[in-house]
Amino acid sequence: MLITPGKLLAGIDSPEDLRKLDRTQLPQVCNELRQYIIDNVSVYGGHFGASLGVVELTVALHYIFNTPDDQLVWDVGHQAYGHKILTGRRDNFKTNRIYGGLSGFPKRKESPYDTFGVGHSSTSISAALGMAVASSLEKNPQRQHIAVIGDGSMTAGLAFEGMNHAGSTDSNLLIILNDNCMAIDPNVGALKEYLTDITTSHTYNKVRDEVWNLLGKMSTFGKSAQEIVSKVETAMKSALLRQSNLFESLGLRYFGPIDGHDIDHLTAVLNDLKDIPGPKILHCVTVKGKGYGPAEKDQTKWHAPGLFDKVTGEIQKKVYDTPQAPKYQDVFGHTLVELAEQNPRIVGVTPAMPSGSSMNIMMKAMPERAFDVGIAEQHAVTFSAGMATRGEVVYCNIYSTFMQRAYDQVIHDVCIQELPVIFCLDRAGFAGADGATHHGAYDIAYMRCIPNMIVAAPMNEQELRNLMYTAQLDKIQQGTQAFTIRYPRGQGVMPQWRTSLEEIQIGQGRKVRDGEDIAILTIGHIGNYAVEVCDTLAKEGLSVAHYDMRFVKPLDEAMLHEVFNKFDRVITVEDGCLQGGFGSAVVEFMTDHDYTSRIKRLGIPDRLVEHGEQIELHHECGFDPEGIANAVRAMVGHGISV
Amino acid sequence: MLITPGKLLAGIDSPEDLRKLDRTQLPQVCNELRQYIIDNVSVYGGHFGASLGVVELTVALHYIFNTPDDQLVWDVGHQAYGHKILTGRRDNFKTNRIYGGLSGFPKRKESPYDTFGVGHSSTSISAALGMAVASSLEKNPQRQHIAVIGDGSMTAGLAFEGMNHAGSTDSNLLIILNDNCMAIDPNVGALKEYLTDITTSHTYNKVRDEVWNLLGKMSTFGKSAQEIVSKVETAMKSALLRQSNLFESLGLRYFGPIDGHDIDHLTAVLNDLKDIPGPKILHCVTVKGKGYGPAEKDQTKWHAPGLFDKVTGEIQKKVYDTPQAPKYQDVFGHTLVELAEQNPRIVGVTPAMPSGSSMNIMMKAMPERAFDVGIAEQHAVTFSAGMATRGEVVYCNIYSTFMQRAYDQVIHDVCIQELPVIFCLDRAGFAGADGATHHGAYDIAYMRCIPNMIVAAPMNEQELRNLMYTAQLDKIQQGTQAFTIRYPRGQGVMPQWRTSLEEIQIGQGRKVRDGEDIAILTIGHIGNYAVEVCDTLAKEGLSVAHYDMRFVKPLDEAMLHEVFNKFDRVITVEDGCLQGGFGSAVVEFMTDHDYTSRIKRLGIPDRLVEHGEQIELHHECGFDPEGIANAVRAMVGHGISV
Repeated sequence: MLITPGKLLAGIDSPEDLRKLDRTQLPQVCNELRQYIIDNVSVYGGHFGASLGVVELTVALHYIFNTPDDQLVWDVGHQAYGHKILTGRRDNFKTNRIYGGLSGFPKRKESPYDTFGVGHSSTSISAALGMAVASSLEKNPQRQHIAVIGDGSMTAGLAFEGMNHAGSTDSNLLIILNDNCMAIDPNVGALKEYLTDITTSHTYNKVRDEVWNLLGKMSTFGKSAQEIVSKVETAMKSALLRQSNLFESLGLRYFGPIDGHDIDHLTAVLNDLKDIPGPKILHCVTVKGKGYGPAEKDQTKWHAPGLFDKVTGEIQKKVYDTPQAPKYQDVFGHTLVELAEQNPRIVGVTPAMPSGSSMNIMMKAMPERAFDVGIAEQHAVTFSAGMATRGEVVYCNIYSTFMQRAYDQVIHDVCIQELPVIFCLDRAGFAGADGATHHGAYDIAYMRCIPNMIVAAPMNEQELRNLMYTAQLDKIQQGTQAFTIRYPRGQGVMPQWRTSLEEIQIGQGRKVRDGEDIAILTIGHIGNYAVEVCDTLAKEGLSVAHYDMRFVKPLDEAMLHEVFNKFDRVITVEDGCLQGGFGSAVVEFMTDHDYTSRIKRLGIPDRLVEHGEQIELHHECGFDPEGIANAVRAMVGHGISV
Repeated sequence: MLITPGKLLAGIDSPEDLRKLDRTQLPQVCNELRQYIIDNVSVYGGHFGASLGVVELTVALHYIFNTPDDQLVWDVGHQAYGHKILTGRRDNFKTNRIYGGLSGFPKRKESPYDTFGVGHSSTSISAALGMAVASSLEKNPQRQHIAVIGDGSMTAGLAFEGMNHAGSTDSNLLIILNDNCMAIDPNVGALKEYLTDITTSHTYNKVRDEVWNLLGKMSTFGKSAQEIVSKVETAMKSALLRQSNLFESLGLRYFGPIDGHDIDHLTAVLNDLKDIPGPKILHCVTVKGKGYGPAEKDQTKWHAPGLFDKVTGEIQKKVYDTPQAPKYQDVFGHTLVELAEQNPRIVGVTPAMPSGSSMNIMMKAMPERAFDVGIAEQHAVTFSAGMATRGEVVYCNIYSTFMQRAYDQVIHDVCIQELPVIFCLDRAGFAGADGATHHGAYDIAYMRCIPNMIVAAPMNEQELRNLMYTAQLDKIQQGTQAFTIRYPRGQGVMPQWRTSLEEIQIGQGRKVRDGEDIAILTIGHIGNYAVEVCDTLAKEGLSVAHYDMRFVKPLDEAMLHEVFNKFDRVITVEDGCLQGGFGSAVVEFMTDHDYTSRIKRLGIPDRLVEHGEQIELHHECGFDPEGIANAVRAMVGHGISV
């Protein structure tokens, strides 16, 4: 499908072209850019609301600042579609998030305008400050450094750490707070309330104006009253302006709030700010999904809506003839409520991913027992630990890739303290279209090295339910071990998934299929590929055994003794990194016990793997069904080398 | 040596006993407690200044609150000596930090009064909030929850995340900000400046008082003026009290600042605060080292001074007859300056550990190029990444155990972006007396699974220097890989350590000693044990080869082929976790290449290892020289089983 940019946008191959336009033409550029994003995303998919919300900001920034020499850093980056389109990637934008195509996030390798690769939130202030300090060291005081960060991202500790440092420097840093009251879900926390407060002028601005106004009236009371008024004004200015604002408290000059959709005002303000030295923050109020009605109304749904009819606003739903397996996310969400109905000590915690993780099901059913703590993974884990010390049974659901941000808290606040917190690592393995920044590639390696940690992965919905059930049993909750359950993004394999809940013995694997020639050991959902492979190879006369190990830690040692006593050729398969991962644990066991079977480990190799459909990435890395089958054939000498 | 507690302290076996005393006796309790800490630390060692600074706070908290039912959480915990002494551990306190003795930090297993294990900073608000929420769920509104956190700890993002959540709840949480302007080194950043500002009343309090005062005078101008004054006052109160304070901005009721050494006032205020519902913060100003002159004067030196003469204040220095090897920390610090003098792009970053890491040497020599960013590991790494995008050569020095807190930043902001940041992981391996929370046990496992990451460890001072030299060469800095250099706490082995700087080929190991019977592969400083073992065993007629692999990643594959072709028995040794560590990488290589040598991996086992001298812990885990020698003997059949 051919998507045609508007007349002005068609002529913008780089910000240089944009800057040649007259300021009066910018509203039209904004309209065309917005339309181009709607046209593309409706047909090709991707993130939506965030980019619509910053159309004016994007145009203004590239118009006023001398990008790419001036350093512009987008936080998270799913709002950077307009930026990509204006910086030479307009015609290629249809490949966004497609295998081999453009990344859905700014990426250094893709463009000099992408000064910092992003995907995870809240990095922009620290990164831009680093650039600003480098410019100081280079004796380049002219270069501008701009971090665009949302109010949701502002809640993460990293952003605060960045501000705390920036505010004590004289760096030439402009933070643009893109305040739309949203992360993917509505933003939460005290900071959000504060921002709403100053934005809606209920107190700060109103009070300031009111007091000024009242003091004005005092001047009618004669000279000595006037003097006092003057002193009061001075003192108040000092108090209100220097200290009354959270950001001013942190040493940042605060400007705003201003309307982030008023392109004229935006360009004027940004132009003025260029001349104000030192660290500063401009508070822009925007609307997520701005300019597209349905997206403005239901901002969570339209964060990344999938394909839709741009005229009717109808989001395409796939229609299936047969019952479909549910998403693991929904199995998690419903099962959590089911368990919590039985066990009153169960609580749920999510850092800003209620809809993504399906924790919103519990938040709706039992609002007092399910907590969205905002983008704050570290806090999510330590808060969970605190609750666990008091006997609460905590399911802390964090995407595998975001759990990297709470690693110390898992070690220091949970495992060293022997607290039985249950970690549900969503989107473990390849995340798909979000790409390298979002793949849950490392969790098996980084979790299994921690003492007091059980690491499991379900092969299907029933296994997920049973692992979740097992984790909350007294025998676990009165023990000393945390419990990690990792599962992938997307669908399982069981349309009839509401199975009865059964305990699983910790560290007990499942023999899925017996065989004679070779054994495949799998962990997690990827085991379903092995089922397919065993069938395929049986037709070729190969007798392949398949073990679903279920647990990376503790390993099922009895099962492994059986495997290594019986098979001299073994293949391990995991949707996770090969270095230190599940297969690595298996070879540790094998060599610790002096077995000498030949072993081939399949999984994510030691390099960055970019975005694409999960199956495309599995194929690229040689552990899709074809890859696994080839590995078996090669190992048993059926002539295909791998 | 017998240390006798004062008369009152001798009668306090638990806070129950303390609470039986009259309020007028508390100053004496404080004196005795302070003296007891001085007596103990001067003779047995440990952290010093922090505990002296909170003597009054400690006594007041246990006097006013109903511990341990009321939940008291100490942040970091090296200030909790007084707490330990008052809670049943007085007579046992001499075993503090000694192998098998009391932990230097609060620890859940040690006492019910230690509600949350600590060691790393900034966890207390999140943990106490978790406890408070649990009390709400239990319908126990009476229970009090107190987090005592220093101003240094307050700069870490986790503390901010906790406040952001707490401030939006009605939890019964009291945060006590113990403001002494210090972490181990002087605290830095905008928050510190802000706290100093409000404490010293230069603006906030002064302005508030001044304005109130001035407005008072206005009432002499008649009724309509009075009305206006009244309106102004109301408006100002709203502005100043609700919004003018950083903490109030975050939804916390702010009280203070008060003198943290005035025991009468402290108990009165704490008693009042018990009745104020919701999240609140009490700002206490204290002096680190309070009551011991030398410690008040040089607070960094007296953070953990070692043994000292309590009368003269003279810190004991060991006297040696022969030249001693330097600490790795000092080799790092001096070598960094040496390199930075040659390479103008070199900069240094430390999160609040300038003296511990010896980055203070560069901070003194080149203040504009060395950055202490405060307790903010996440920011330290992303800030480093930002500088690296602009071509700076960044040495980011973080203790191994604290790097856990910046794990996502290493993956997401450095390695995925292919930025050649140099990470120097100090205190890798067993940290010693600080114990389980501080051991750098996991870094090899969690670093080597990340793509674009070189992981190396020097066996001695020269190797450290050469690795540091190599990391800043253009061939590395213009490449795509980050460079991790891990080294332990404490002394190396080379009194003459100022060797000339030489490049090391990436991924190239060193054959230290040839042999015929068995090979030992080591990584890092622990290789010196192997040198000793080879000598010992040679006398027993065993010919042991020793390879210092130098790099965990990339492995020296040529060397490993040599090893596995020649030796059917191999031992790996590392001062790091066995799960996924160096030995694990070696068995991955071995099995990937179908070698079938027997291999024994020595290192830190999969359980918590508590505190003690490094050598005691190496012994406990079987990789001190004796343990390694025994492993060799067992493997070659010299009759000792391991």
